[in-house]
Parts: sequence; structure tokens; C-alpha cells
Amino acid sequence: MRIDGKAYRTIWRAGPCAVETIDQTRLPHQLAFRRLDSLEGAVAAIKTMIVRGAPLIGATAAYGLAIALSEAGDEAALQRAYRALLASRPTAVNLKHALDDVRKVVTPLPPVERGPAAFGRADAICEEDVRLNLAIGEAGFELIAAAHKTSGRTVNVLTHCNAGWLATVDWGTATAPIYLAHDRGVPVHVYVDETRPRNQGAALTAFELGQHGVPFTLIADNAGGHLMQHGKVDLCIVGADRITARGDAANKIGTYLKALAARANSVPFYVAAPGTTIDWATANGRDIEIEERDAREVTHIWGRLDDGRVAEVMLAPPGARAANPAFDVTPAELVTGIITERGVAPAAARALARLYGRG
Amino acid sequence: MRIDGKAYRTIWRAGPCAVETIDQTRLPHQLAFRRLDSLEGAVAAIKTMIVRGAPLIGATAAYGLAIALSEAGDEAALQRAYRALLASRPTAVNLKHALDDVRKVVTPLPPVERGPAAFGRADAICEEDVRLNLAIGEAGFELIAAAHKTSGRTVNVLTHCNAGWLATVDWGTATAPIYLAHDRGVPVHVYVDETRPRNQGAALTAFELGQHGVPFTLIADNAGGHLMQHGKVDLCIVGADRITARGDAANKIGTYLKALAARANSVPFYVAAPGTTIDWATANGRDIEIEERDAREVTHIWGRLDDGRVAEVMLAPPGARAANPAFDVTPAELVTGIITERGVAPAAARALARLYGRG
Repeated sequence: MRIDGKAYRTIWRAGPCAVETIDQTRLPHQLAFRRLDSLEGAVAAIKTMIVRGAPLIGATAAYGLAIALSEAGDEAALQRAYRALLASRPTAVNLKHALDDVRKVVTPLPPVERGPAAFGRADAICEEDVRLNLAIGEAGFELIAAAHKTSGRTVNVLTHCNAGWLATVDWGTATAPIYLAHDRGVPVHVYVDETRPRNQGAALTAFELGQHGVPFTLIADNAGGHLMQHGKVDLCIVGADRITARGDAANKIGTYLKALAARANSVPFYVAAPGTTIDWATANGRDIEIEERDAREVTHIWGRLDDGRVAEVMLAPPGARAANPAFDVTPAELVTGIITERGVAPAAARALARLYGRG
Repeated sequence: MRIDGKAYRTIWRAGPCAVETIDQTRLPHQLAFRRLDSLEGAVAAIKTMIVRGAPLIGATAAYGLAIALSEAGDEAALQRAYRALLASRPTAVNLKHALDDVRKVVTPLPPVERGPAAFGRADAICEEDVRLNLAIGEAGFELIAAAHKTSGRTVNVLTHCNAGWLATVDWGTATAPIYLAHDRGVPVHVYVDETRPRNQGAALTAFELGQHGVPFTLIADNAGGHLMQHGKVDLCIVGADRITARGDAANKIGTYLKALAARANSVPFYVAAPGTTIDWATANGRDIEIEERDAREVTHIWGRLDDGRVAEVMLAPPGARAANPAFDVTPAELVTGIITERGVAPAAARALARLYGRG
């Protein structure tokens, strides 16, 4: 999508054995790029969240393996790079998928051919992600277009966290329908939850929508229920970290509260995610373990000072204890539909299984 | 309640014609006191939110009028002081009540007696507030004690914003039951919503609970639903800015989302407020106009830097548009009961009218 009027992806080739990414830890205050030309650089980029978002982490890991194999393509080097990248974010499922994918392609090849082949495969992983997101976008676009047709006015979409193009290679999941609608002239406006405690909404979603020219309004996470009570939201679209076989959706903490408000006010609530997000082995969302993150994310926050410097400030009294569950689970009953690359499916076991040929 | 082990109120007499208050704009980072010994000082304290919370604003205004009348007790001085204080926060109903109350007492008196009489009446307004809050505390205490008796373990209360002693003269409304339970040895723990965008939970509620020794855990506003899904909250107690005749409750933005989560997870949801909060002329909460505050409260935040200085940081991209509705309305259907100085009443027109002898 666009930044300063120029088309970007979140990761791109920069020479024969290197890639470049946007340093997302600097957003929204600074647009900085980071060149990754070593295994260590790729590992660090994932670890320090220079890149974040499951699909982008997967793509970065694939390129990281390719960079490592371009230096040394023997079995030991492959093992070492695979392990280092896998350990960079152990809970990210896409990361392992991407690494396995590249390893499978290069294993039968002689060492010298492994680097270029790995780069080719990493490129393909990126293209596949773009294709998936565009397909999600097309399915979700129909919902926005239909809402516009019904009302004849701007469609107000509420989203939570960042399931945007910055989390993927391009387009995003929850944002793909929004970008397509905007690019095709369907008037769309987005209410962006700031998404405490890490503020991915204020820092990333607001940045990417604003840069692409999509009208948006930033709100405190507390405001969404009130807006829905007053008819200001036509539909909610959020991403998901994991969807169970019956359609329960684990997503950034706070998603569940918006789903409750949407149900209470008859606002359709959609989860946008590719089929790879569905965890067929887990039926009930209550069985998903929720990561507890650092309390400091609640008691402190980063921002830009008047003089342009970026600094962390403490919000709570010294020594205040804080809890920081990273995700919550929205039960399928509150989800109007799941927007996938194969179309929109009800959040229900049979419908999801049928959509993916497992029924 | 206690700060650094010492008992405080939010406002107290400091000499014959002056009062002292806690400068709440400095909390939680600094405990600073502010002496008010002129009409201008009292007006400024209300305007700049050195004092905040409807009951404390009322008490400060009453003292402000007393201070002015101690300097000059003639009719013109009374008029001028009354008007200046009323204009300091035009939407605060308690403020007008307190001013009318003092004016009524001093009007029949000769100018020279008006100052001392006004101070006496202001003192009485403070005592009345303390008495009201203690009565609310007693009514709510029964709920916490009963929850402890049933479970045999610590009672987990979730609260939103600051309806604490810092908003009143002492005890608070939503916090009075909590302080009584704690002081009487009923084990209680509080989940404190940080309450974006102004963070009254993180700055004030966390401060006052911590200083008084009540165990608490600060959470992002997004976390409460998840905690309720997992049985970690036994009851919610919040304050209210206005309650309609049928029991709809206007309170800090985000309250409604917690009420929805409480209902969905069978957690009792209580609103604690004195009868003076009930707006008998308004039946339906949808008729309450909601104040839209400065967008900068969403895009920026104040906090303490590493070096101890307090600074404002920007959280959003430059120029980001933000919306900032200050309150939302929780419909009576989601309110388990209203904790008043006359006991706990169902949130329903007939029950409230009967409680206050209007039925």
C-alpha cells in the first residue's frame, strides 16, 4: 500500500542476498528502513519486533534462511539457521510453516544451489500471502459494497489492533476489504481502536490508513460501545491470531468486548483471516492458552515528545502491579462471519469444515 | 483515607479564611498540596482540575464562596463570586447545588457575618458528603461480605475510572464499600481499569487504593471482558455522573462495555451513587447528551519520564483525527443494582422512586 504516495510492501529484495523492511518499532513517529543481509540481522529483526504480524514474520524468516544459505549451503549451516530463526519467536505458527516450506525445497539440492532456490521460495511465500489477502479483500469488499448500497452513505467500519498491511506482506487481512473499497470508490471510514496496551491501532493502523488516504478516526478502546449504541458503526472487521474448528476467534485483548457491543446493537461482526489461521485440532476457544505479557506494557507507554525524541513515560504510581493478558477469545456465537480467501463462512464447525474440504 | 500512612481528606481548613487541597493534576507522580485563599484561586483550582469529581468540586466551590465573602460580604461581592464559581465548570450539577446552598444560608445575614457562616455551611457540605459516602459504603459492604461468605476467598471487584475518595471529600462512592471491606478484614482485591483516555484509573484509583493498602491490579480497559470470561471478577462496582429515573447510568466512557461483559458472564454489575445523582426529569439514558472532549486526550498522554520529569508524549501519527466521547450510558437492564445511601435498589423506575419517596 502507499506511504508518502509511494507503493510499498513490508519486505522487498534489496540486492542478490539481502532484503529491506520497514522498522515498525519506529512507527508512527519515523519511517525508517532496515536492511537485512545476515542471519543474525533477520533473527534480530523478528526478536525485536522490527517486523511483526504472523505473515510478515513468516516471510522474514524465509528470507533469513535464504540469506544464510547464500553464505553457506551445507547441512550444518541449514540446521543452524533453521534453529536460530525458529527460536526467534517460538509461538509464531507461520514462522515454522515458512521455514519448513523453504527447507523442503532446498534439502534435495546441492549446497551451492540452495541460496538462490531459497530466495525463490521466499519470494513465492510473499506472493502467496499477497494473493491470500487480496482474496480475503474481495470477499470482504462485497460486505462493504452491500452496506453502502443499502445505506447510500459512507460505510463506517470499526477495527481493533493492526491486522493491516503492515502485519502482512501487503493489503492486510482485516484491512484488505477496506483498501479495496477505498481504491474502488466505495466511501469507507474506519474507527481505529487505539488498542492498549501496545497501541497497535494508534501507532500502526492509523499510520497505514492515513498514508494510503483512507479516512479514519482514532478512538480510545472504551469508545466503541458508545459509537455502536448510536448507530455510528456499520460493521466491525478484526483479524485473528487463531480460529478454532467451531469458529471461536483468539485475537488481541479487547476484541471480545467489541463483539459483545456489536451483538447488543445488531452490528455485524466479522473476523478476517486466511484458512491457515484455523486450528482444526482445537474446537473450543476456552482451551486456547492466553499469553500473559510484561506488566510494564500497561504501566508505561512510548510516545513522541514535543522535541521529536521518542521516550517512554510511566502512567501508573511507582510499584503498581498490573496484569497484561495479550489476547482474548470471542466465542463463535458473537461472530457474524469469517472472511476467508475462500469467501465468507458462518463461524460454525460444519461450515468451516465444508469450506476447506474437511467436511 | 490514607496516604503515606496518614489520614487525609481531599479538602480541609487551613487557617481562618483558607483551605488546602491535593493537586490532583500531579498524581500519581507527585503528592502536592494547594492552598486556596482567594476566589480566583478557587475558580482556577476547579477550572484546571486541581480538584475534580462532582462532590469535591461542590465542596471547593462552597469554600470558594466562603473565602470571597470573608473578604467582602456585600451583595455585589456575593453575586460576583457566585457567578465566577458557577462558570468554572458549567456542567457540574453539584457545583450549583453547593453554591445555592451557601447563598441561601448567607443571604439573610448582615455582610460581616456572611464569611464565617459560609465557612460553617461549607464544612457541613463536606460532612454531609462523607456521611453519604459512608452510607453507600455500608450498603455496598454487605454485597462484598456476602460474596466472601459464599466463596470463602478474596473478593475480586472490577472498577472503572475514579469514583474514589479523591473524587469526593472522603471514602468515594464506588470505592466506599471496598475501603470498608478492607478496613474490616474482608479480603478484597480490585481490578482497576486504566480508563483511557484520561487514565483516571491508572493515575488516581491505583494511587488511592495503593496508598490505603488495598490490593489492586491495574489492567488495560481491554482486559476486563477476558477476566470475566475466566471467573476472575466477582462483582463490578462503578460510579455514575448521572442516573436516569429508570436507572440508566451515564458514567465514564467504557463503562457500558464492562456492563455487557458482566451480563454475558453472570457477574453482578453495580452502580454506586448518592440519590443526588438521579436525574428524575430524564427517563431514558438515550436523551443524555454526551460531551465530546478534546481529541488531544486520545492522541497524546501525560506520564513520568525516567528522569522524574512529567511530560506529554504523542501516541498517534501527526495530524491523526480522533474522537473522544467522554461518557457512555449503560442501560438499566445491564445494572444489577444501584448502591445508594438508602440501600441497594434495582435499576428500575418504580424501585428508585419508592426508595426516595417519590413513588
